[in-house]
Amino acid sequence: MRSRPVRFITFEGAEGAGKSTQIRRLEARLLALGQPVLTVREPGGTPLGERLRQLLKEASPGWTICPESELFLFLASRAQVVRQAIGPALRENLWVLSDRFSDSTLAYQGGGRGFAQPLLRSLNEMACAGLAPGLTFVLDISAPEGAARIARRGPESAKEDRIESEPREFFERVRSVYRELARLEPDRVRIVDAERSPEEVAAEIWEIVSHVFGL
Amino acid sequence: MRSRPVRFITFEGAEGAGKSTQIRRLEARLLALGQPVLTVREPGGTPLGERLRQLLKEASPGWTICPESELFLFLASRAQVVRQAIGPALRENLWVLSDRFSDSTLAYQGGGRGFAQPLLRSLNEMACAGLAPGLTFVLDISAPEGAARIARRGPESAKEDRIESEPREFFERVRSVYRELARLEPDRVRIVDAERSPEEVAAEIWEIVSHVFGL
Repeated sequence: MRSRPVRFITFEGAEGAGKSTQIRRLEARLLALGQPVLTVREPGGTPLGERLRQLLKEASPGWTICPESELFLFLASRAQVVRQAIGPALRENLWVLSDRFSDSTLAYQGGGRGFAQPLLRSLNEMACAGLAPGLTFVLDISAPEGAARIARRGPESAKEDRIESEPREFFERVRSVYRELARLEPDRVRIVDAERSPEEVAAEIWEIVSHVFGL
Repeated sequence: MRSRPVRFITFEGAEGAGKSTQIRRLEARLLALGQPVLTVREPGGTPLGERLRQLLKEASPGWTICPESELFLFLASRAQVVRQAIGPALRENLWVLSDRFSDSTLAYQGGGRGFAQPLLRSLNEMACAGLAPGLTFVLDISAPEGAARIARRGPESAKEDRIESEPREFFERVRSVYRELARLEPDRVRIVDAERSPEEVAAEIWEIVSHVFGL
């Protein structure tokens, strides 16, 4: 019998796809089963990571981050959260749910910015110390629908950050990398249609989680 | 005739070795010859880099940076300063003087933290976009003498930052990498005995600079 994957589940996809909503719902279901859960986000999840998140989101005049620096900052945040939060939690038998992880680098810095996938994979390996998610949900949504949802969140959320202000083609390349990852690793990477209601999306996610982990 | 190296001079060595004093003196001599100079420091030299410098120097309780994150943060700062400051200045025919650069990564993250030199070299190449200093001074000072000088600067400077609080062996490994670099690239990397007076050190540096660049 195949052994169960590590209880580390990551959520990927465009802004506006509903990652944080779905993470809260899955966390609640696991907690209701008496399963302790650590949720983290990337960039972030540690004191260092949250400071890096501010730098990466900043969109003030004169503030520039070149693609190489952006990549290194995401990797710095990831290396820290793996060693300081995710790794210790998994060793304590907690579930870990992460809002973005290594696949975001492949999608955004690879598809979006054009860095080569083998380079990104070797940098991810260094940042992750060999840790890979057991299951990854890609919440799939079209670029216009994602933008429309962010706009509906109100003026504060709609204020675009540095990465969200990229052109539409950027997000189409991001989306196509996610699809390719699902093709390459179908057991781990599951594409979920996120244009449905949050309830429908949550039901599909729970069905997959309970099946994969035998809950 | 061998062409002159790029007019990009970096200063390396332990804290307390007198890098900033020597940079100010060299800058003054170049300016007196009507040569425009950009001076930068690492980490730093750009808005992003200065914010990363604060994170890297921070030594408050509960603040931790793993070796991988530390490495990525130095690289992020370097990638930015190369593209935003050093590269443009060199294209404008300015001299560039930098307080630390890529050799610091080889010495501190390699010798100090134990990352492999080939890995660090390939990451440096990515951060530097092929740019290498034309001349590098390693201000050489023993670990006890460096520590004594920092202590004499007064209580504010003596308050050790995160890296300066490493044990003495760390700094001995750092020093030995600098010596190895000077052995491998004797034209570029010059070790200068920094335990002498600032005037003597400045005179030797000027002699080398005027010879190498034909001033």
